[in-house]
Amino acid sequence: MKTNVGIYLYNQAEVLDFAGPFEVFSTASRVKLRIDRDSDAPFSVFTIGEAGQNILAHGGLEVRPTYNFNNHPTINLLIIPGGVVNDEIEKETVIQWIINISSNSEITASVCTGAFLLAKAGLLSGKSATTHWEDVPDFRSMFPDVRVIKNKRWIDEGKIVTSAGISAGIDMSLHLVSRFEGDDLAVKTAKQMEFDWTNI
Amino acid sequence: MKTNVGIYLYNQAEVLDFAGPFEVFSTASRVKLRIDRDSDAPFSVFTIGEAGQNILAHGGLEVRPTYNFNNHPTINLLIIPGGVVNDEIEKETVIQWIINISSNSEITASVCTGAFLLAKAGLLSGKSATTHWEDVPDFRSMFPDVRVIKNKRWIDEGKIVTSAGISAGIDMSLHLVSRFEGDDLAVKTAKQMEFDWTNI
Repeated sequence: MKTNVGIYLYNQAEVLDFAGPFEVFSTASRVKLRIDRDSDAPFSVFTIGEAGQNILAHGGLEVRPTYNFNNHPTINLLIIPGGVVNDEIEKETVIQWIINISSNSEITASVCTGAFLLAKAGLLSGKSATTHWEDVPDFRSMFPDVRVIKNKRWIDEGKIVTSAGISAGIDMSLHLVSRFEGDDLAVKTAKQMEFDWTNI
Repeated sequence: MKTNVGIYLYNQAEVLDFAGPFEVFSTASRVKLRIDRDSDAPFSVFTIGEAGQNILAHGGLEVRPTYNFNNHPTINLLIIPGGVVNDEIEKETVIQWIINISSNSEITASVCTGAFLLAKAGLLSGKSATTHWEDVPDFRSMFPDVRVIKNKRWIDEGKIVTSAGISAGIDMSLHLVSRFEGDDLAVKTAKQMEFDWTNI
């Protein structure tokens, strides 16, 4: 069954935080189709903005989300990238959307400071999680009910997976490819991306 | 002096090929400003499309280039990402633009199959270069006057720098940060991105 991967986009999202996972899942689908031309693409990857308007990512890259909160397909794997999350964490509609989508998705995952949004949504309470090394002290003081782990590329808590900073989102996404489609496809995807996967 | 980094965007460009360098140079600027608040940002990073219209990257990410061929600022470092380059390599306006910009830029660099566009523009003749491992045979037969090197993250030929596939563009961009601003900033940028830099 095809996995719908929905990546949330917002102003000041970190470019590699969303582009890394986007690259991993779209490459994984292409690699799978090459191995078996009769198969279906295992992943459908798309982006969602709150209102569907263009967003300006951190540093100024302008991206047009494919969908908005009201018209996106079912999401099996929700990915929340990091970036400057100060505005997002205060938006009730955004946090409530994450809660709603997460309650029906198979997996909700964050990259970098995206973990702050998952924590604000209550998804990390009592769980282990990770975030960008620089933000660990702030995270611990804001969310004392989360066990923050350092020096790991990602933490897999089953329905919730969090990754460390920026490029660690690529390692985590390869791990998620492995969970959905097996280790062989994840390894081949990393090779196609010429990425030195930290497979731990 | 600030380095203007211009990244060419086109339909079917590979997402990580342009997002990786974008992330590196914008992060390097932020890291530098944190070290020395009185300094100027060392890099200004922007995107250019042929006509300035939105482009659909490989896999469907929709990006709006900031500039077009007729209104972009001076480019000191031109970056040509890879992707499905079949259409681009046949466009005389694109190849001529690369020739023109390259003749005035300090460095022209490619990621992955972007090397095919540099070769078509005649910039790699008699030089060493690299590209995605999978495309080496095609590259060699199309451009026999280029020495193709395998198993290197990037090849630095001074004014021309080429990188291997997809994620190798991040390694190459860190190398270019080092060339413009020194190794210390490149190392700190990699740490900020939590990227395991292949510094060879």
